[in-house]
Amino acid sequence: MRFTSEESSAGVCEQLFTLDEIPGVLWTPEGAAGTRPLILMGHGGGEHKKAPGIVSHAHRFVAEYGFAVAAVDVPGHGDRPTEEEYNRIAAENRARVEAGEELAPLVAGFQALVARQTVPEWQAVLDAIQRLEHVGAGPVGYWGVSLGCGLGVPFVATERRVRAAVLGLGGALASASAAAKISVPVEFLLQWDDERVPRAQGLALFDAIASAEKTLHANPGKHDEIPAFEIDSTLRFFARHLS
Amino acid sequence: MRFTSEESSAGVCEQLFTLDEIPGVLWTPEGAAGTRPLILMGHGGGEHKKAPGIVSHAHRFVAEYGFAVAAVDVPGHGDRPTEEEYNRIAAENRARVEAGEELAPLVAGFQALVARQTVPEWQAVLDAIQRLEHVGAGPVGYWGVSLGCGLGVPFVATERRVRAAVLGLGGALASASAAAKISVPVEFLLQWDDERVPRAQGLALFDAIASAEKTLHANPGKHDEIPAFEIDSTLRFFARHLS
Repeated sequence: MRFTSEESSAGVCEQLFTLDEIPGVLWTPEGAAGTRPLILMGHGGGEHKKAPGIVSHAHRFVAEYGFAVAAVDVPGHGDRPTEEEYNRIAAENRARVEAGEELAPLVAGFQALVARQTVPEWQAVLDAIQRLEHVGAGPVGYWGVSLGCGLGVPFVATERRVRAAVLGLGGALASASAAAKISVPVEFLLQWDDERVPRAQGLALFDAIASAEKTLHANPGKHDEIPAFEIDSTLRFFARHLS
Repeated sequence: MRFTSEESSAGVCEQLFTLDEIPGVLWTPEGAAGTRPLILMGHGGGEHKKAPGIVSHAHRFVAEYGFAVAAVDVPGHGDRPTEEEYNRIAAENRARVEAGEELAPLVAGFQALVARQTVPEWQAVLDAIQRLEHVGAGPVGYWGVSLGCGLGVPFVATERRVRAAVLGLGGALASASAAAKISVPVEFLLQWDDERVPRAQGLALFDAIASAEKTLHANPGKHDEIPAFEIDSTLRFFARHLS
């Protein structure tokens, strides 16, 4: 793990790093020392580790609760090189949608393929970050919607260090079998008028999660229109389960 | 409006009253003076104005936010006399369920009938309580699940003073047309394994609510198993919209 930059603002320290060619970012309270909860955030499709939604959530997790937050670029996103195979499949999928195929099953298949690479990558990132003195081996949370849900469900299902997860904007097609292996508390965000994930698919994914404690928060609006007040709920959810 | 008793505990003043033969209870902060938000609470079927769930919610609304809270007995419940017609219909419905009919449509029809009586009763209660110096004509909220939702949906749809409502554990059969007239923010509680309200009926009622801001909170468990953490969310919802 190699740190390439460090800067602070408003009490939040941001460190860019690379780990085995994976570019990442770690946010911690300025001057932090000792073990604290760590939240790994998975970004959306076409976004990257420092997308505005990731940065604003991360700053609140750090500033209001003293958590550490990490995000890394998904293969083919952000500062990572183009992935010829993924690009080829994405182009094929676009053509199939234009030819009349349903979008959701194609997205689901693609996310399942990428997750086979990201689950071990994210585990390696946890290993490295939890060895840092100012993070340590505290409880871990996961936050990811849309692509961050498609990749997050198999990650949360596999990685025992994760104690609580916020997921959403994803459907059951790719993730139902992995969701059935999740047992930690989950807050699941669903957009009632999601133009990319059919409502029934989102409800079916929530249904498939095996956790005894899981809450569905559904709000009107499209895929990218999660209301601002949900961030407050997310903060309290992680505070309840990780503090 | 006639007050029949008054006592205080832990900073919460509880006054029993009757208004035109309707027995009710009003909770306010001890020593309250001046206008404040008022929450009307509708109790569940077979319960009454001082059911434990009502009392515990009311105490938190009063103690933590300084709100006033009122609840009255639904006809045939609590301190009200037996209603021969309602009893006859309820007995008929029990017989029809034993003979194999579906429960949900019968409950829906019954609640629609009772609502024709309770909507004007509750409006008269608001009128009377808002004339009290220690409550005044501030913003009004409504809270009611199960029977309190079946009766609450037509009330919230009709009564313009209501600015925000918590509803839930109800289905679309009785309430969809009234729900389409609701435009205030709604937090809607649904139990994922509700044995009394089919899941699709609950989702359809949430769908039918016309409000631009509405949030569905769905949790695993049966009709009577809303998790304790939802009360915290309810408190913040009312604080956001009534304070």
